[in-house]
Amino acid sequence: MTPSPLPVLRLKPKTKPQAIRRGYPWVYANEVVTDRRTRAMSPGTIALLEDADRSPLALVGVNPNSKIIGRVLDGPDAAHPDQAWFAARLRKALSLRERLFPTPFYRLVHAEADGLPGVIIDRFGDIAVVQPNAAWADALLADLAAALAEVTGVTTILKNAGGRGRALEGLDDVDAVLLGAAPSAPVPVEMNGATYMADLMGGQKTGLFFDQRPNHAFASGLAQDARVLDVFSHVGGFGLAALAGGAVSAQCVDGSEAALDLAEQGAARMGAADKLTTTKGDAFEVLTALGEETATFDLVVCDPPAFAPSHKAREAGLRAYERVARLAAPLVAEDGYLVLCSCSHAADLSAFTGACLRGIGRAGRRAQLIHTGQAGPDHPLLPQLAESGYLKALFFRL
Amino acid sequence: MTPSPLPVLRLKPKTKPQAIRRGYPWVYANEVVTDRRTRAMSPGTIALLEDADRSPLALVGVNPNSKIIGRVLDGPDAAHPDQAWFAARLRKALSLRERLFPTPFYRLVHAEADGLPGVIIDRFGDIAVVQPNAAWADALLADLAAALAEVTGVTTILKNAGGRGRALEGLDDVDAVLLGAAPSAPVPVEMNGATYMADLMGGQKTGLFFDQRPNHAFASGLAQDARVLDVFSHVGGFGLAALAGGAVSAQCVDGSEAALDLAEQGAARMGAADKLTTTKGDAFEVLTALGEETATFDLVVCDPPAFAPSHKAREAGLRAYERVARLAAPLVAEDGYLVLCSCSHAADLSAFTGACLRGIGRAGRRAQLIHTGQAGPDHPLLPQLAESGYLKALFFRL
Repeated sequence: MTPSPLPVLRLKPKTKPQAIRRGYPWVYANEVVTDRRTRAMSPGTIALLEDADRSPLALVGVNPNSKIIGRVLDGPDAAHPDQAWFAARLRKALSLRERLFPTPFYRLVHAEADGLPGVIIDRFGDIAVVQPNAAWADALLADLAAALAEVTGVTTILKNAGGRGRALEGLDDVDAVLLGAAPSAPVPVEMNGATYMADLMGGQKTGLFFDQRPNHAFASGLAQDARVLDVFSHVGGFGLAALAGGAVSAQCVDGSEAALDLAEQGAARMGAADKLTTTKGDAFEVLTALGEETATFDLVVCDPPAFAPSHKAREAGLRAYERVARLAAPLVAEDGYLVLCSCSHAADLSAFTGACLRGIGRAGRRAQLIHTGQAGPDHPLLPQLAESGYLKALFFRL
Repeated sequence: MTPSPLPVLRLKPKTKPQAIRRGYPWVYANEVVTDRRTRAMSPGTIALLEDADRSPLALVGVNPNSKIIGRVLDGPDAAHPDQAWFAARLRKALSLRERLFPTPFYRLVHAEADGLPGVIIDRFGDIAVVQPNAAWADALLADLAAALAEVTGVTTILKNAGGRGRALEGLDDVDAVLLGAAPSAPVPVEMNGATYMADLMGGQKTGLFFDQRPNHAFASGLAQDARVLDVFSHVGGFGLAALAGGAVSAQCVDGSEAALDLAEQGAARMGAADKLTTTKGDAFEVLTALGEETATFDLVVCDPPAFAPSHKAREAGLRAYERVARLAAPLVAEDGYLVLCSCSHAADLSAFTGACLRGIGRAGRRAQLIHTGQAGPDHPLLPQLAESGYLKALFFRL
């Protein structure tokens, strides 16, 4: 039986197909012929992308409701994705992570770079948390989940529908349990000698941020005998890593009582509960208050949420980063360390570094830059898509 | 007794002093009043930098023979540098390295970023190799060496006069032994589980490149059971680290017989002599020949000398990097790793990444970028001087 032919998405005559041929993974709505048939495609339709001369270019997932109308999934001769197709992609992603990490706690799939556009999968041992942030993946979620269980052996698969990308794609925001049973308690995760508690059902994002792992490790290497301040601490990412690295004390500051409670649980499991203090409050207010007390620390880390999530927010975001640096720098002891992070796509490394230096300078301090950290290697990049990653961690010595 | 006042170097009226006030460390010849007295200053003179209104700005080291006529050494109220002044700078530099590394093998001083403009000091246990690449430091070398012995306890201090910077400063190219006796044999250096042999008298640069240490470590983490090709291997930086990380074989390619001999000595000390092969030859020719043999490796590293050392050489350099990528990519097994390095100041990260991707694309391969490495933290940066470091190591998975 011949399979029914795939629907076709066609580039406009003025749209050059070279970018797609070189591996660019996105087709924008204004680049394709949007006739009645195209507009009638249901979100998640698998189609054949052709250039204006009807030469086949790629297999794409279509979403007429998104500015990114097509996401490249495979070559033009590939069949409609099924469980076996997902399994092959997942095996390739898994083999990288198994090489990189001794235990199965990592970002298993980082979207386009792992050949699964819009799909994020974080793994916590026997539990996987899937964010199907594109319509094609949402439509094929059953095949994806089946392949995930087959390839990794995970016994629980959770769907996290909280990603910002889903709203842009017109997808629902309903979390779900796709396999097994939702964990009834936070899951302990060992990284860099610390124990983090990941709340996979109630937490922000997927309950734990794997991307900062190498930066936690670098901070841990600076922490011997240090007094540490971890601002915007979430569940204690830097603070607990510093305690594992020999810090004498860590003060975690966050706006979320739930996150600080998880930090305390992690410290208790590490036998370091007596070295951790937590402060619930607005980070800017806490930094200001500590400055008025002329408190000092040997290592200060500020890892705020994205202040510049979009180009429109860029200038205001950079001012916020500068303010963080200006308030944090006076708290750093002479020859101490200041770690300033940004997870804003819209603030590139150069602009972010400039904002940090202005803040440090306004605090009357001078800095060496000893390390520029990025997201860990379980967050690979598709080079065609982004020259530099979103995550920046600047390690200054003041 | 009042000390005799320092000579004065004065900014031109149109030269704004803000950059210096914010920590920029260089004064260009065209920014200062160059009267007869300025031109008569001997290279290495310590002077007081003033703005056009005669407000003191900084203590500077002067070299009328250099485009960088002044290098900021300290604040305007500081005294003429002496042994105690050097000792304070060295103690600060040492405390960072002692925190970062368990054994005394590192770059101890990285010039401007460590408050000693133009001065490079690499430490190999009890031996220090000094590159006084600026006239002020060359003139005060005796004080510097005495402070170095005092602060670190090194028993041998070598002067390496081979740096390109010395010619630009009009300084001699005469190596010397400043303290103790020159080592009669290569010095073993343990890094990342590998043993490197550093030839401190005859080798390139200071006999070993500490800057690639974290990139060697990352490659080592990918090397379990891998067949490794290390092109432009020098003394086996990546190849020996890969063997320490569990590689089954490493082939080192370099144009220098002496460097390859040191790689073999290192492998022998590691008990891994049977896993190392060395190939003396032109890297492009060897890559081409391996391609004709359709040889494949699981990990290929190319760490060439600076192809784009200056802005004039930028375009030709980028073409050379592209060619390396095009020749190396076919040698990488499916799902294998390709590490491409650049130590060219003039090729920034974005341009270098583009050249690598063009080369990989022309070889018909697609890549994930899993890690972007940089120089290690014993190579701090002065943020005012350089937004990004010179060393780039791109870890691709093909």
